[in-house]
Parts: sequence; structure tokens; C-alpha cells
Amino acid sequence: MPLRKDYSGQSCSLAKALEVVGERWTLLIVRDAFFGVRRFGDFADHLDIPRAVLSERLTSLVDAGVLERVDGDHGHVEYVLTDKGLALQPVLRSLLAWGDDYYSPKGPRRVFTHAADDGRIDRTGRCRSCGEPVPPGDTVVAPGPGLPSRPKPDRVSRTLTRPHRLLDPIPG
Amino acid sequence: MPLRKDYSGQSCSLAKALEVVGERWTLLIVRDAFFGVRRFGDFADHLDIPRAVLSERLTSLVDAGVLERVDGDHGHVEYVLTDKGLALQPVLRSLLAWGDDYYSPKGPRRVFTHAADDGRIDRTGRCRSCGEPVPPGDTVVAPGPGLPSRPKPDRVSRTLTRPHRLLDPIPG
Repeated sequence: MPLRKDYSGQSCSLAKALEVVGERWTLLIVRDAFFGVRRFGDFADHLDIPRAVLSERLTSLVDAGVLERVDGDHGHVEYVLTDKGLALQPVLRSLLAWGDDYYSPKGPRRVFTHAADDGRIDRTGRCRSCGEPVPPGDTVVAPGPGLPSRPKPDRVSRTLTRPHRLLDPIPG
Repeated sequence: MPLRKDYSGQSCSLAKALEVVGERWTLLIVRDAFFGVRRFGDFADHLDIPRAVLSERLTSLVDAGVLERVDGDHGHVEYVLTDKGLALQPVLRSLLAWGDDYYSPKGPRRVFTHAADDGRIDRTGRCRSCGEPVPPGDTVVAPGPGLPSRPKPDRVSRTLTRPHRLLDPIPG
């Protein structure tokens, strides 16, 4: 029996958030959108999930206003984060930090720095150098000590072997 | 076809975290543990989920070291958060804040204050009055303006109609 998606009866903003982003794969799709993934094929190759599942999740995220469809180059549809989607960054950051703490003995798999001054970004999203909160577009992600040295061969994984500014489109 | 629980191939601490706490209901169980829910029956009544699902989730959380089983009063088994479980508080806080922002037009459903000085706790877990980070055991949860006025009849919901210190056991 599949479990229902909603949490009816849970009058709780956590439950409501999980109704929108708590399904399997959903937050990984949102993470990829922060990395600058925009195209269906890039999401599919990087996440390695059934295309029907990806399609359903993207539709749900668009319906919820977390992503929006835009016209990209060469007639491709692209998916980009809305303000509501960008507001999920603290959720991703907190889950990532917990995963690094308990499941990455060699250190963080990825490190995040402030593009303006190369300061490391702390768990609350502030630059340790200048002390300011750093918006995603000013954030650079780079491989950390915990990342395996052999990346997967897909375009997204290869792009992320070098420092990459969040939200900058993955090169085609 | 059920989707597999793991995210093999995703070398990412976010994916790893979601393997542990990303299943349906899991973070709501963790939330309830922060509220002081300890007994199987109280989780079941408050969450209103199939007992087999709850049982499976509790076992997974114990296996992952997020909860531990302890002997409670009257021979009941109780479930309490470990340090690793308590370290999930920023995850709950960030999801709750996002849910309040986008799905609770009347304001937060619950408000969190510092027991020592009644200061409101901000999104990063600091007391707005004294500026200190507030551990869960010093945090008081109370109904906020967005909470429906008619609580569900279960013991947990009734307890949470009044200010309640996090981690304090729900009265039997």
C-alpha cells in the first residue's frame, strides 16, 4: 500500500514543508538546481533516476512554485529556482552539515566559499571572513576533502570537480 | 515499483542525510521526539500512521543512532533522541521556518522561546533577547497565531496547547 503524500491531520509547518519537498528525490533535484542544473537531461544523468519519476517531481515542484519553467537556448525548456525555491537553501545547508558530520569521516564532501573574498561560509550561511550572509549567487562550491577523487562521467559531476558558482548554468 | 531507499551513486552528504531521515514520516517522528514524545502509543496517536510503518521507522532511527531505546516507567520501552538525533534540530528548524513562511498565512503555528529569559528564538537557534544559542532542553514551545484553535484529542496535541519545554516527557 503506497503511503499517501499529504500529512492530513498534522497541523504543523514542518509537515506542510515535507508535503512539498519531502518526497524521495525532491530535495536532490532542488540541490541540483542550486548547482545550476536546468535541463531535464542533466538532472536525469546526474541523479540517475527513472525519467518518469523525475518528470513527476519536476511537475510537482513547478506546481508548488519552487521551480519555474523558462525557455532556454535552442528551444530547451529549463527549470530555475523561484524565490520560494531559493528560500530552501537553509534546509539544504542543515541537512548537508548533518550528513557531513556523521557520514563523511574525511571531512566535508563539498566546501562553500564567498566569491567576493574567498571566505568559508559557515552553517548559518554567513561568510567567516566578512561576517555577511552570502546569497546563493555569490557562493562558490568546490570539492572538499571528503569527495571521492573519481567523479561520475556525467556533465554535472564533471563541472563540479572545479570551483563553480551556485546558480550559474552547468555548461552545455 | 517501489523506489529504493538509498541514493547509490550520489556522493553527497545531503543524499546521505536523506537516506537516514528522508523517508516519509521520519522527520515528523524526530520532531515528536523533540516535543518529548517517547512512547510508541503516543507517537502512533499523535501522528495517526499505520503502526507497522511507525515500527519500521523507529527501528530504522534506532539502527541509525538517531534514537535510542530506554526502559521507561511501568516497563514501557521509550525512545529518546541521542546526540546525533539532537543534532538534527537545525534541519527541523529550517523546514519549519520555510513551511511557516509559505504555508501559514496567519503566522507561525508554533513559537519557540528561551526558557531562561522568554526571548524568542530566531531561525538560527539564537535567543533574540540574550543572543545565545539555545539548546533544545532550554527551549519552550507554545502555540502560535497560525495554529488552529481546536487541537486533536490525543495526549500529545493536548499537552502542546500550553507552553511545553522541549524534550520534557509528555505527561502520561
